[in-house]
Amino acid sequence: MKKFAVVLCGCGPMDGSEIHESVMTLLAIDRNECQYTIFAPDADQYHVMNHYTKEVMPEKRNMLVEAARIARGDIHPLTELKSADFDAVVFPGGFGAAKNLFTYAIKGTKAEVDAEVERVIKDFHAQRKPIGALCISPVLLARVLGNITITVGTDERTIHDVETFGAQHINTQQTEVIADKENMVFSTPCYMLPATIADIADCAENLIETILENI
Amino acid sequence: MKKFAVVLCGCGPMDGSEIHESVMTLLAIDRNECQYTIFAPDADQYHVMNHYTKEVMPEKRNMLVEAARIARGDIHPLTELKSADFDAVVFPGGFGAAKNLFTYAIKGTKAEVDAEVERVIKDFHAQRKPIGALCISPVLLARVLGNITITVGTDERTIHDVETFGAQHINTQQTEVIADKENMVFSTPCYMLPATIADIADCAENLIETILENI
Repeated sequence: MKKFAVVLCGCGPMDGSEIHESVMTLLAIDRNECQYTIFAPDADQYHVMNHYTKEVMPEKRNMLVEAARIARGDIHPLTELKSADFDAVVFPGGFGAAKNLFTYAIKGTKAEVDAEVERVIKDFHAQRKPIGALCISPVLLARVLGNITITVGTDERTIHDVETFGAQHINTQQTEVIADKENMVFSTPCYMLPATIADIADCAENLIETILENI
Repeated sequence: MKKFAVVLCGCGPMDGSEIHESVMTLLAIDRNECQYTIFAPDADQYHVMNHYTKEVMPEKRNMLVEAARIARGDIHPLTELKSADFDAVVFPGGFGAAKNLFTYAIKGTKAEVDAEVERVIKDFHAQRKPIGALCISPVLLARVLGNITITVGTDERTIHDVETFGAQHINTQQTEVIADKENMVFSTPCYMLPATIADIADCAENLIETILENI
């Protein structure tokens, strides 16, 4: 039974992990008769957004504590994630991933990466273990690994930025997966393209199946 | 294209709507080529739980604002839910549903029901439009409607309580649906029984398909 680590960073598309992408990733892992273990950084989110009014809320929330809502409490600090314990790692997306895991939403091509997130990505890459990324998270992999091939759908500004990081971009239609087998990096567009929730389930399913074909 | 209303009450199993059950309900509706519209009471949750430490947090959070995380912002106050606009209504579960939609988690068989929640359930029932309920939420329907037939799985204490409300209980295995066609009430156990996330997806799919067969 293959073991996946899933890295979250809160609970909500605007300030944490996109919930549909996170849940569909867990579902796809379970339906493929594999195990998942969920991790998140034990640190405050970049900020807290009111998802109804779209306004910033004057609060602080912790990524690990909020992601525990998606994980039903079964979650671990990202510092405990060791690549030796897993066959693959997956990063669901959400605008919050681009605020919390790295600062791309704020600093663009000057984005800084959380040190533990960078360690995890580099460890899995060095061991040639698959790294999966949904939605905006492939940009994180491009920022850390540079010369890899990914997809974020068709958004021109984002494509320009990932090319600035030294990565190659391949345009995709919804639910497609780009497999960079040389780097063992696998990506799918999800909410970077117009999507229904069934599209997100299909993206996650296609991503996990493609990873399993390449482990 | 059939139209479903989905009633949430926050975002998290311990103090709001169970996230997996909510997301899988939306997925099942979308995969059956139906539409969903999401509602929640515009009021504070009963309390806020830290899902990592399982402790109460000294905060207030609003059910509508937090459920907007699951809804990606596309959500409406429960006061705007009119049964005339929909073919069916569904209540996902979570311990939070038994704190927010009614007070069963605190007051047991003396549970009080949120006035708007009671109005919605009675309206759909009076019009013989299907009402679906997952996990603990069938207890809410029993509290409001009394003489109906539901399932919550096999938990003896909960079964005793729903019988106190005048309802009949049928034991189920995971992913089964009980259809009370006379009352147009449909229920499935989800996390009231041991479950993987794939079981929750199957419960939701079976529930929505059974409702569609009976609209």
